[in-house]
Amino acid sequence: MLRTANDYINSLRDGRIIYYKGKKVEDVTKHSILGVTVKHASDLYALQTDDDYAEITVTEDEKYGKISRFYHIPHSAEDLNKRFDLIYKTTEYGRGIFNIIKAIGSDAIFALMISSARVDKKYGTNYSSNIANFYEYVVKNDLALAVAQTDVKGDRMKRPSEQKDPDMYLRIVDRNEKGIIVRGAKAHSTQAAVSNEILVIPSRNMLESDKDYSVAFAVSPSTPGLKMISKPVKSVEDSLSDETLVIGLNNAESETVTIFEDVFIPWERVFLAGEWDYAGLTAVMFPTFHRFTAIAYRSAMASLILGLSKLLADSNGVFGASHIRRDIVDLIMYKETLRSAGISAAYKGVKDITTGVFTPNTIYTNAGKLLANTHYTDIIRSAVDIAGGIMATLPSSMDFKNPETSNLLKKYLAGAKGDVEDRFKLMNTLRYIISSLNALFTTAMIHAEGSIEASIIELSRSYDYTNDEALAKYASGITSKINEPRNERD
Amino acid sequence: MLRTANDYINSLRDGRIIYYKGKKVEDVTKHSILGVTVKHASDLYALQTDDDYAEITVTEDEKYGKISRFYHIPHSAEDLNKRFDLIYKTTEYGRGIFNIIKAIGSDAIFALMISSARVDKKYGTNYSSNIANFYEYVVKNDLALAVAQTDVKGDRMKRPSEQKDPDMYLRIVDRNEKGIIVRGAKAHSTQAAVSNEILVIPSRNMLESDKDYSVAFAVSPSTPGLKMISKPVKSVEDSLSDETLVIGLNNAESETVTIFEDVFIPWERVFLAGEWDYAGLTAVMFPTFHRFTAIAYRSAMASLILGLSKLLADSNGVFGASHIRRDIVDLIMYKETLRSAGISAAYKGVKDITTGVFTPNTIYTNAGKLLANTHYTDIIRSAVDIAGGIMATLPSSMDFKNPETSNLLKKYLAGAKGDVEDRFKLMNTLRYIISSLNALFTTAMIHAEGSIEASIIELSRSYDYTNDEALAKYASGITSKINEPRNERD
Amino acid sequence: MLRTANDYINSLRDGRIIYYKGKKVEDVTKHSILGVTVKHASDLYALQTDDDYAEITVTEDEKYGKISRFYHIPHSAEDLNKRFDLIYKTTEYGRGIFNIIKAIGSDAIFALMISSARVDKKYGTNYSSNIANFYEYVVKNDLALAVAQTDVKGDRMKRPSEQKDPDMYLRIVDRNEKGIIVRGAKAHSTQAAVSNEILVIPSRNMLESDKDYSVAFAVSPSTPGLKMISKPVKSVEDSLSDETLVIGLNNAESETVTIFEDVFIPWERVFLAGEWDYAGLTAVMFPTFHRFTAIAYRSAMASLILGLSKLLADSNGVFGASHIRRDIVDLIMYKETLRSAGISAAYKGVKDITTGVFTPNTIYTNAGKLLANTHYTDIIRSAVDIAGGIMATLPSSMDFKNPETSNLLKKYLAGAKGDVEDRFKLMNTLRYIISSLNALFTTAMIHAEGSIEASIIELSRSYDYTNDEALAKYASGITSKINEPRNERD
Amino acid sequence: MLRTANDYINSLRDGRIIYYKGKKVEDVTKHSILGVTVKHASDLYALQTDDDYAEITVTEDEKYGKISRFYHIPHSAEDLNKRFDLIYKTTEYGRGIFNIIKAIGSDAIFALMISSARVDKKYGTNYSSNIANFYEYVVKNDLALAVAQTDVKGDRMKRPSEQKDPDMYLRIVDRNEKGIIVRGAKAHSTQAAVSNEILVIPSRNMLESDKDYSVAFAVSPSTPGLKMISKPVKSVEDSLSDETLVIGLNNAESETVTIFEDVFIPWERVFLAGEWDYAGLTAVMFPTFHRFTAIAYRSAMASLILGLSKLLADSNGVFGASHIRRDIVDLIMYKETLRSAGISAAYKGVKDITTGVFTPNTIYTNAGKLLANTHYTDIIRSAVDIAGGIMATLPSSMDFKNPETSNLLKKYLAGAKGDVEDRFKLMNTLRYIISSLNALFTTAMIHAEGSIEASIIELSRSYDYTNDEALAKYASGITSKINEPRNERD
Repeated sequence: MLRTANDYINSLRDGRIIYYKGKKVEDVTKHSILGVTVKHASDLYALQTDDDYAEITVTEDEKYGKISRFYHIPHSAEDLNKRFDLIYKTTEYGRGIFNIIKAIGSDAIFALMISSARVDKKYGTNYSSNIANFYEYVVKNDLALAVAQTDVKGDRMKRPSEQKDPDMYLRIVDRNEKGIIVRGAKAHSTQAAVSNEILVIPSRNMLESDKDYSVAFAVSPSTPGLKMISKPVKSVEDSLSDETLVIGLNNAESETVTIFEDVFIPWERVFLAGEWDYAGLTAVMFPTFHRFTAIAYRSAMASLILGLSKLLADSNGVFGASHIRRDIVDLIMYKETLRSAGISAAYKGVKDITTGVFTPNTIYTNAGKLLANTHYTDIIRSAVDIAGGIMATLPSSMDFKNPETSNLLKKYLAGAKGDVEDRFKLMNTLRYIISSLNALFTTAMIHAEGSIEASIIELSRSYDYTNDEALAKYASGITSKINEPRNERD
Repeated sequence: MLRTANDYINSLRDGRIIYYKGKKVEDVTKHSILGVTVKHASDLYALQTDDDYAEITVTEDEKYGKISRFYHIPHSAEDLNKRFDLIYKTTEYGRGIFNIIKAIGSDAIFALMISSARVDKKYGTNYSSNIANFYEYVVKNDLALAVAQTDVKGDRMKRPSEQKDPDMYLRIVDRNEKGIIVRGAKAHSTQAAVSNEILVIPSRNMLESDKDYSVAFAVSPSTPGLKMISKPVKSVEDSLSDETLVIGLNNAESETVTIFEDVFIPWERVFLAGEWDYAGLTAVMFPTFHRFTAIAYRSAMASLILGLSKLLADSNGVFGASHIRRDIVDLIMYKETLRSAGISAAYKGVKDITTGVFTPNTIYTNAGKLLANTHYTDIIRSAVDIAGGIMATLPSSMDFKNPETSNLLKKYLAGAKGDVEDRFKLMNTLRYIISSLNALFTTAMIHAEGSIEASIIELSRSYDYTNDEALAKYASGITSKINEPRNERD
Repeated sequence: MLRTANDYINSLRDGRIIYYKGKKVEDVTKHSILGVTVKHASDLYALQTDDDYAEITVTEDEKYGKISRFYHIPHSAEDLNKRFDLIYKTTEYGRGIFNIIKAIGSDAIFALMISSARVDKKYGTNYSSNIANFYEYVVKNDLALAVAQTDVKGDRMKRPSEQKDPDMYLRIVDRNEKGIIVRGAKAHSTQAAVSNEILVIPSRNMLESDKDYSVAFAVSPSTPGLKMISKPVKSVEDSLSDETLVIGLNNAESETVTIFEDVFIPWERVFLAGEWDYAGLTAVMFPTFHRFTAIAYRSAMASLILGLSKLLADSNGVFGASHIRRDIVDLIMYKETLRSAGISAAYKGVKDITTGVFTPNTIYTNAGKLLANTHYTDIIRSAVDIAGGIMATLPSSMDFKNPETSNLLKKYLAGAKGDVEDRFKLMNTLRYIISSLNALFTTAMIHAEGSIEASIIELSRSYDYTNDEALAKYASGITSKINEPRNERD
Repeated sequence: MLRTANDYINSLRDGRIIYYKGKKVEDVTKHSILGVTVKHASDLYALQTDDDYAEITVTEDEKYGKISRFYHIPHSAEDLNKRFDLIYKTTEYGRGIFNIIKAIGSDAIFALMISSARVDKKYGTNYSSNIANFYEYVVKNDLALAVAQTDVKGDRMKRPSEQKDPDMYLRIVDRNEKGIIVRGAKAHSTQAAVSNEILVIPSRNMLESDKDYSVAFAVSPSTPGLKMISKPVKSVEDSLSDETLVIGLNNAESETVTIFEDVFIPWERVFLAGEWDYAGLTAVMFPTFHRFTAIAYRSAMASLILGLSKLLADSNGVFGASHIRRDIVDLIMYKETLRSAGISAAYKGVKDITTGVFTPNTIYTNAGKLLANTHYTDIIRSAVDIAGGIMATLPSSMDFKNPETSNLLKKYLAGAKGDVEDRFKLMNTLRYIISSLNALFTTAMIHAEGSIEASIIELSRSYDYTNDEALAKYASGITSKINEPRNERD
């Protein structure tokens, strides 16, 4: 049953333990900073009854009736296209800030459906039914979800079981009839602090020695032993004193270090517990779905930066200059190459035989994501080149309100065309993106959903070289026909 | 009616005037060098009856029966996908050398169908029926076509009518009841020397002062007054003394400077003659189709370079090294981003209302092409980095035949695995690509189907900024809702 | 006579009009935010008596005795090397924040010495003696200087005299026996608010129609009619609540929009007034000196980012990984290519014949600066890639003080080696650089001392192609000897 | 005593065994292709008595009188500057083709002087006097030298002693009182076929198990058991039929696979034989000198490509276009960054304490070389972008001689200005560089003097991070003063 924004907000007052800048947060929904992250998440619920958005955010399910479209299991390219659109449009609605609270959890559920079926097949476990039940629980209650994957990792060159402190990767410290006890910490869990359930999955492939680290489960943030320490949400803090910064006043997400001090998880919420040879599968299935999600929200972010740059080029009167055109095209290329990767990932997706879940094409998903990683700083350079130096050295919006300075600013900050205060707002927003939001945006673009190197390794491994090699051998005269050997992918 | 390879070859003995390295070519089909370009083109005919290729090269047409699939007018995304596949696979068959002889002409015909309809509507001309009749003539006779678009241009900063010598852009010097007389020269017309008809179209937009330069028509290469001067086909010349260079021995295309010394063109073969305000449309519609074609053949070329690089990485035993993996992924990204652009260009294509011709999406087509332009030299750097220095300083295949040196080479040129002569062939082929083929490949990748700057201008002009600007204004607090104004593209 | 830090600070209490975030600043030296920019500038005075720095910051002048080394007029490559070192080391002392207050003014004075001599020669003016007297005044009183060059510009595609509002470039609105009256606004004048004199110079070349805009002079910030509106100094504001952010607590500079409401300038402080054909020379001589300065301070900034990255690579235990090595080398290349440009600019500098002032080599200065412009965002990408995602999602320093979370953070944020709080500080500092400082750093790196396009135009114009063309003609067989024609530069 | 060109040429008729394209070469000086490489090398001798070049190619030595300046041991920055100039100017004289025959050998001798002193100190060997005697022999007889360093390597991931075939790295197979017996093959030894002595040195660091591979010596090409198999010198072959290609008709070098079939080396020519812990030192000292040489010749190559591009931009009438200016500046940046690295490497060089040999600065040398490696394909892209498509599809010079086509070409290939045949020559030369010379140039730029990865490893290892780390700690508040710890490099 679909919840309202208020239903969702009320559900967060459950005793969860959150810290923010050295203080315990009494009620996250009323916190001056984290409250914005609650408001932002609640928008996804509000949109379900918004005339303009209901059609894309809600769908009719045979079994459950009206459900959130995020929780519709994809069975076709068309389903993936709609999912892309849903993520793109809700990110636009969030003024370029992704709204993760249903997307990431469903990405993880779809991945766990596929991986659980394989684990069950080998080990006779019943993880498939656990994840199916959990899915039903989520859909029926229209829950908000977070995912905690990345461990804190200590020495990055060592495996989980090789670390000096054995808790640097989350692990099972005990197990009994009712469930397992886990200890460890997950880094940067987005919106965990404002979620109803956190899905915890392994962050890498494992060896037998890493058995205890091969664990996946779902847990409520209010479970005893679970503590979340939030990063300072700079983008909200910076906007409090400037009413023109509407992004920070309305849209934000928080990340927490999520710490498990011997937390109990009942068996029915466990999806992997020691089957080390499947940790890698879980670790890799989730990113395939989530990177597809990433391509969608990142192209909406790119749209924002492109739009600001285009309007500022007009405002500066330089849109026709050759070097500015080149900058603009850099931005177009970034946005549209992401979108193109999304289209191809959907149309060339693959249906999982056992579960029927339709998975985005790995190559296009990773290729799109890798482009997004490696070129984000390039589009920032292009946007800054277009905006001009004044963007960074601009007075504040308060100077527009002071009668002693307001007319001077209106006179001297005028551009080639357009209203001068609108011009200020566009520049101020771009300044905000490359300052208040920049640590998040740049780092997320480079690391979120897996690092650059991770994507390079994934692409070089999963790519099927058969046809390229066949062509090379044929063109080198080693074979006399192109189609030996040959597969059907190309 | 489908022709055989021999039908096609015989059709070229028609008195056409071709020069090669200072000499007139008596019979192009028997010329030691240009003969290879004939052979290469004839393969497209041979494939029509080849069991492995007939299905993709031939299609059943309601009106004309079995026709070349190249001449099937696209009416849907699926048609474009099949066309992409057709070009990709015939390029593979040509060992990475594109086979242009039916692709480019059909690209031009589709473009002229659309543009002619618009010219006719304004001017009451009958170009639509001219191009329709010409199309029927081509299909029925299964002709080989070339396109001549780029003028020699003289001073690139001046318009056609501003040049010191008025003939630097091809122009109408006279017109009478029966037709027009044209003079000028078109640079680098690929395979014009071995075509049955050459389609001539304007290379840029025109002003009223450039009226006489606004001309499009079809002409047979044997028409009096038409002379073609070929470039030296280095890739064939270099292979003659090395039997291991199977590419050059089998697959090549030539470019000619195609000179019109007052050539008469009858009205029924004219598709534009003075309607200067439509020269730009023709100049821009053709590239949209042809750049889609380019993305297809370039991804096949990229596949060849990727395949060679992968096999050489294995042969050198370095596939696992991190920096080599990065090189390999550069190659994968290049190839697959092109392919992804092709997929998106097809699925997001647009049907022309008047003619029903389905046109590839402009943004994805140009974005793919621009990536191909700007990153080709990067993949060469990656391939060379993988192959190692030995690739360039390698002895010749003849040294493998000399008993005094053969065993020494077999001993010392052995790699980590694989047959040493195969290893030599792979290196020799890559060396051939970056030497004998390099002037063509690099220049074509940067300039063919329009220069880098041309694509940048096209993208910045044709891109619809409405939604990006709407998002920027909304996120900057200038508007309070995202969807004002708004279009439906995104 | 050298001043103390206190002398300098006291000199700023002179009634100057400054606005900050909508409020008039009573006493800049006591302002909670701008006070840090005063403190930072005053360090240059304090260092003059610091044992470790006196040798590099003070020099003995024949005429004036002990003077600031910034005000030593360069006469040799060695002088430029020492100047580079002076700027580099004082930037290091400022924790990577450039200390502009003596560097930029001396850059402008050196440039005005050269340009004034040429103006005087043509027009019989006495600007040379004006700038010489001003120089003496500055040296004797050990003054702090700012430069105001960039006009607010309105429509960037229009010349000064073509703007709708004639005040979009600063101009002479009246002149009389005693001096001139100027009106207009200069954008982003660094540290003007805490300077003793502001040097105002033209921002571009002029035509005769722009005569009134061709003006250069010096003016005290307390002159009637002069108003400065500061940008919000985010880097200081953000550090106030976090005692670990020592950069923002100690080191910062402000930029102001500096507005001239009909300000009177006496003739003895004027260095150009209507000689429009020399506006361009002034506009271009200053950047040559100032870009040399920029190369020096930017290589110190790069050193900071390199140092943080290296320590974080060690802390993460990933220094040995191939892709991390590549990132580290990106950072080394950036820093050392800048330094190398500085070395070459000094050793290949040129002595101005009339004045004896030794000018940095234009090509190496601009090449170094262009590299700094275009690759800054690349090193940020490399630094972020090394640091890892946790850098952006890190809790705050306050969480290390809260006993409920402190031990958890110490346990879970431990790296491969080193103290965990030091690790936090390094990450927090890098986060600060890519957020609080990022709008300034990125924009300054791309626009300060002239935009990317400005450097490209300057390089393509000032480069001497003679020898390259001679080589090309010789190697193409057009000439038979390399040395015809030939110059001696290479 | 200085030799004449004829002395040198005659010295090559000594029974040396060379193979070229499957045939044994009877007399290398008379060989139709390799003869050009002899002629090119002999130019270095001819220049010693050329009025324009004697001053830079010859110097007066205290001990030996007039000697080749290449063999002057550098003792100061000034010596390195002159050496840079010598290499640059002789490369210009060679029409952009480096003339290696004295440069590389002296690079190796300087390196061996330094390394031998250290080996002798530890092992009591007398390699220092061996290399000193060899140096005297070279200087007195004005010899031409080659260096053979890179082994054929087999499986690149395995050490010498781990290879399946133990001969994949050159090794000592026997030793006796008189000398050592060596077996193995060195890849791509430039100009070994036309040298008087070949210096053989290890290609990597070694472990004790690689003892027999730790060997350095000098050997005459006519020594029994030594065989050289040349690569086909495409650049010469391609020019034979085109008299306008003056580069290939006059200037070329060959590379050989140089095979040692149990060759005897007397002890007095041995500089390392089993002292495995010094193999790495030798392997790394030589590149330092040789990469400095590389920066010099590569900047001359870059000058050629820049000159051609500039003249073609003028010829096309596009020099003023913004995107062409950007291309031109890419070329300027490439050339001048290399030159700047050379200047800095000289001025910041270091004197070896024991031998007094002045060594180029490692960081600037490697940084310059790495830029040359990674950006060569970029300047080719820029040059091709400037030249336009016609460059690749141009007819041949023979078509200018055929009266039937000559006037047509002169009319239609005319540019914006300049003689049309000169225009053709410039284009033809650039086409030649990106085809006939391209496999060599591109591969050499990426691999010669060490691969990209080798430079990255070298830079990340040899760079001194002390000051950068000190700054990072200070700016992060970990230390309170910048100068703890601290070294004096910066």
